[in-house]
Amino acid sequence: MNFSSKLLENAVSEFGKLPGIGQKTALRLVLHLLNQDDKDVERFTESLTLLKNNIKFCRKCHHLSDADYCEICSSTKRNQKLICVVEDSRDVMAIENTQQYNGLYHVLNGLISPMDGVGPADLTINHLVQRVNEEEVDEVIFALSATMEGDTTLFYLHKKLQNPGVKISTLARGIAFGGEIEYADELTLGRSITTRVPYENTLNR
Amino acid sequence: MNFSSKLLENAVSEFGKLPGIGQKTALRLVLHLLNQDDKDVERFTESLTLLKNNIKFCRKCHHLSDADYCEICSSTKRNQKLICVVEDSRDVMAIENTQQYNGLYHVLNGLISPMDGVGPADLTINHLVQRVNEEEVDEVIFALSATMEGDTTLFYLHKKLQNPGVKISTLARGIAFGGEIEYADELTLGRSITTRVPYENTLNR
Repeated sequence: MNFSSKLLENAVSEFGKLPGIGQKTALRLVLHLLNQDDKDVERFTESLTLLKNNIKFCRKCHHLSDADYCEICSSTKRNQKLICVVEDSRDVMAIENTQQYNGLYHVLNGLISPMDGVGPADLTINHLVQRVNEEEVDEVIFALSATMEGDTTLFYLHKKLQNPGVKISTLARGIAFGGEIEYADELTLGRSITTRVPYENTLNR
Repeated sequence: MNFSSKLLENAVSEFGKLPGIGQKTALRLVLHLLNQDDKDVERFTESLTLLKNNIKFCRKCHHLSDADYCEICSSTKRNQKLICVVEDSRDVMAIENTQQYNGLYHVLNGLISPMDGVGPADLTINHLVQRVNEEEVDEVIFALSATMEGDTTLFYLHKKLQNPGVKISTLARGIAFGGEIEYADELTLGRSITTRVPYENTLNR
């Protein structure tokens, strides 16, 4: 596209590098910002610079945090004996949004993926093992994606965490609530039949 | 959503103000930038700051420009006797992309819209009238959206530009190339029948 302005072209090219943002959307965003007050644009760029320069990762669970320890790990109201293992900080936010979980987290910062060259050493697995051994942990919940990488990581972690006092569990899988049977994918539907649960178990939810 | 970080929340909220970007997309973009090198993020914010501080509007056609006069107005290869009137700079880029037009432009910076409190004085209409009267102009082409506001602006401008030596034209309207008749909207289809053209006219395109 001919922008007739190098400055505009540069800004559009930078925005176009963001995931899911093509050139046309990038142009729309840049022109929108160009129409805003100087102060608004300054606030926009400053928020990003501040974030980039000052964000930390919690020393305990590796979740994004403003301080050395994140709000969740610092809270006295959380159940310290539960650790939910997730791939990244976005998963923590998603689970927090449900308001159904009151324990701590452990962010792996990725999943084991030999295809992408990501091995156990690239993740925070050793720290998780250390936490499970040193802290008083009752249960480790794996909330990993049901993909090849998720299953590989789960298998590896399960072997690593052979601690008799610690229960290991994973998220329940099956037909989504509100999901229609005829539109469920074959794999999920098939598995949800073989792993069917007694009706009484579903009543007290 | 609970971000457990004020810095992250601020950045996501700033990104969420962009048109078409919701909270979830904003979070995805911010986390993506957080995973980039410091240098990349700096380049991103700097491109925007540079653009905002240094971009100019062409003194002749009001198109976005790095210099006082834009590339198009400065070019000696363009037909100086043709002026294409558009709503904003994005339209200039869209028409330039077609590589079918070799004249100059005039960016109105909006359309007359009494509902939004935009009157003729808010646009660059006086400058356009001045250009048509002072420069040697053969033809003024209106490339405005086929909306209420576009038609109002067109009507107003047509009255203002009563210069006997200047031809006034608008974009051709009708069924899109590649468009299927049965899916064309009624209005366009109806108008394209009443304004039908001789078959011979369509051959040398």
